[in-house]
Amino acid sequence: MDVLRELEEFRRKDVPYSRVLGSMCTTPHPLAVKAHEMFVETNLGDPGIFRGTKELEEKVIEILGEFFGDPKVKGYVGSGGTESNIQAIRAFRNVKRVDRPNIVVPKSAHFSFDKLGDLLGVEVRKAELDDDFKVDPSSVESLIDDRTVGLVGIAGTTEFGQIDPIDELSKIALDYDIPLHVDAAFGGFVIPFLDIDVEFDFRLKGVRSLSVDPHKMGMATIPAGCIMFRGDEYFDALSVSTPYLTTERQYTLTGTRPGTGVASTYAVIKGLGFEWLRDVVRTCMDRTRILMEEMIDLGFEPVMEPVMNVVCFHCESADRLKSELYRRGWVVSTVREPEALRLVVMPHVDENVIAEFVSELRRVKRKVLKS
Amino acid sequence: MDVLRELEEFRRKDVPYSRVLGSMCTTPHPLAVKAHEMFVETNLGDPGIFRGTKELEEKVIEILGEFFGDPKVKGYVGSGGTESNIQAIRAFRNVKRVDRPNIVVPKSAHFSFDKLGDLLGVEVRKAELDDDFKVDPSSVESLIDDRTVGLVGIAGTTEFGQIDPIDELSKIALDYDIPLHVDAAFGGFVIPFLDIDVEFDFRLKGVRSLSVDPHKMGMATIPAGCIMFRGDEYFDALSVSTPYLTTERQYTLTGTRPGTGVASTYAVIKGLGFEWLRDVVRTCMDRTRILMEEMIDLGFEPVMEPVMNVVCFHCESADRLKSELYRRGWVVSTVREPEALRLVVMPHVDENVIAEFVSELRRVKRKVLKS
Repeated sequence: MDVLRELEEFRRKDVPYSRVLGSMCTTPHPLAVKAHEMFVETNLGDPGIFRGTKELEEKVIEILGEFFGDPKVKGYVGSGGTESNIQAIRAFRNVKRVDRPNIVVPKSAHFSFDKLGDLLGVEVRKAELDDDFKVDPSSVESLIDDRTVGLVGIAGTTEFGQIDPIDELSKIALDYDIPLHVDAAFGGFVIPFLDIDVEFDFRLKGVRSLSVDPHKMGMATIPAGCIMFRGDEYFDALSVSTPYLTTERQYTLTGTRPGTGVASTYAVIKGLGFEWLRDVVRTCMDRTRILMEEMIDLGFEPVMEPVMNVVCFHCESADRLKSELYRRGWVVSTVREPEALRLVVMPHVDENVIAEFVSELRRVKRKVLKS
Repeated sequence: MDVLRELEEFRRKDVPYSRVLGSMCTTPHPLAVKAHEMFVETNLGDPGIFRGTKELEEKVIEILGEFFGDPKVKGYVGSGGTESNIQAIRAFRNVKRVDRPNIVVPKSAHFSFDKLGDLLGVEVRKAELDDDFKVDPSSVESLIDDRTVGLVGIAGTTEFGQIDPIDELSKIALDYDIPLHVDAAFGGFVIPFLDIDVEFDFRLKGVRSLSVDPHKMGMATIPAGCIMFRGDEYFDALSVSTPYLTTERQYTLTGTRPGTGVASTYAVIKGLGFEWLRDVVRTCMDRTRILMEEMIDLGFEPVMEPVMNVVCFHCESADRLKSELYRRGWVVSTVREPEALRLVVMPHVDENVIAEFVSELRRVKRKVLKS
C-alpha cells in the first residue's frame, strides 16, 4: 500500500475535533496552517542560519510582551505550557541557589508542576483553594519559607478555567522578594477578551514570568508555547554556551526547534488580529452558556459559574459517563475533587456539536444511571 | 501588507540550505513534508483522542527498536536529541536515587549534557579522548564512583563524527552495574549504512537507552527525535500521573506534542525505506571524500580521516574564516580543540554546492590570510 494512504488510515482512527469536548487544543486556523507550511524546514535551534525566522520570533515576543504589559520582555516560542513552566521555575531556582528549594503553587496547578518538581529537584508545595477554586493567598503565605524560590499563579486553571487572585499573589511576591510565575497557557488568549477586568500579567510588578500557548486558544499550530520574562536576570539564568552553532548561547529547553509555531502565531495575531481573537472568545463564551443551559435541562448542576469556556458539572458517575461516551466516539474529561464532568468549549465546539453531544449524553446518562 | 507575503519576506532572510555546511539538519524529504501536513493538527499529548497517531507512533518505535537491536523497546518521538538526552539521564537518576548524583560523558559530548546537568542537578564528569577523538574507556572508569547514575557514549560526535567504543563502554556498564545511554542523534541513521562493522546499539547488553533523531539524517521534519529504553524500569521512572487527559500517565518531557514527526518518520522509513537511506549515506560519504580532496588541494589538512559525513580541517584562523564566509552568505562551523574548520556534508550538500563553496573559500582564504 502507498505510504500516504496508509498514513491516512491511521489518521482516520483519531477522534475528530467535532467529537472532542475534553481538550484545550483545537483545529488550527487555516491561515496558521499555511504559515506553518511555509516554515516547515526552519530550525530556530540555529538562529544564525534562520535569521529571518529569528527576527520574526523577536517580533512575536515583542507584540505579545506589549499585549501582556511589557514590550521589553525576553522570551521565546517553545513547545508549550509544560516547557514554559519548567523554564520559569528553572530560572527562579538558578537565580536563588539554595539547598532543597521549594515553590508554592495552587492545588489547582497543572500536573506539569509535578513533572518539573521531579525534573528540577524542587519541592512543589500546594496551597489550598477557596470555595470558588481560586488559590487562597493566606495558604500561599503560610507555605513560604527561606527555601522558597518561586510562587505560581494560574490565570485560567485547567480544571475549572478559574483565575487566581494574581494581584494578591503579586503583592506577596514583592513583600517576600520571591518571583511570581503566571501560568496563562490557556487563559492568556481568553482573559483579555472577557467582559471582566482582571489584572494577571506584567502590569503587576511581582510577575516575573508568564507563559501563554498560542496553540491553545490562539489557534496557532502545535507546537507553539511562549515563555516570557521581565528583565534579563531570570532569562539569563537559563543560558548554556553553544559551540558549533552560529550563536554563542542557548536559552531554550530543547536544541533543534521548529520555527513553525512562530510563523503560525504571527499569522493569527497579525493577520487576523487581537480583535478577531476577541470575537472567537465571545463566540466560545456564548456557546458555553448554551451548553450550560442544556446541561442544566439534562439535570446537571454546574460546579461554579464558568469564568471562561470551561465548565464543570457535579456528577457522581463522571468516569462511567466518560467511558461510555468514549466508547461512542466522544471525548470529555472529568475532575476528581469535586467529582465532576468537565467540558471545554473550544472554537470547534459549535452549536451543532453541542446539540449532538447533548443528545448523545442524554442517551448515555439513561443507560449508565440504569445500570 | 498581506501577512503571508510578510512571512515570505522573513523567510527569505534565512540562509538557504544550499549555503549551509555547518548544520546537522537538512531539507526534509518531500514525502516527509506531505506526511507532516496530513498530521498538522494532531496532539500526541492526548493519545486517547489521537489514537490512530498513537498507534502509528508505537509502530515507528517498534520498527526503530528492531532496527537498533530490540523490537521491544519502550519510547516515544519527542522534540530531538536534547530532550532525549534529558529523559535518559532523568530516568537513570530517578532509578538510582543518590545524593549529588553524577554521570560520566565523553569530553566530546554535545552541550545538551551541560544543559541537562543544570536542569537535573547531576554533575557531568567529562572523560578524556584518545588521539582519534574517541573516549578513553580507562578515563571513563577512573571517573566512576558510588554516586555515578549513568554512563554516556556518543555514536557520531557532533564535532568530528567519531564513534566512541560503545562495546567497551557497555562492558564497563555491566561490570559496574550502571546503565549506559548511547547518543546516536546524528549517527543512528548513518552508522548502520556505512561499510564498517561497529556495534553501538541495543545488541550490546549494557546499553539501556538510545536516542536517534529522524529530523537529522533521517530527513524527517522537525521536530522528530526518538528516545528508546530497553525494558520497563527506566521508562517507568519518567512517568507522572495525568488527570483530565484520556490516559492515566505521561512519560514525555513536554505535554502537548505534535504527531507530525511520527508521520514524517514513518513516511521515510516505510515509504522510502532503510535501503534508500543507505543510498543517501553512501552519496553523502562520496561527497565528503570529494570535499576533502578539494580542501586538501586548497591547503587544508584534515584533523582525522572522516568516519561519517563530518570533516574537520586544522585552521588557526577558523573563526575569522567562518565570519567572512557568513558575511558572504555561507554557514560553516568551527572546533576549538584543535582549532579547526568543521564541515557537515548533509544531503543538501551536492556537487554544485561543494564546487561553489570551495571557490568562495578560496577567495575568502586569500583575503583573510592577507589581512
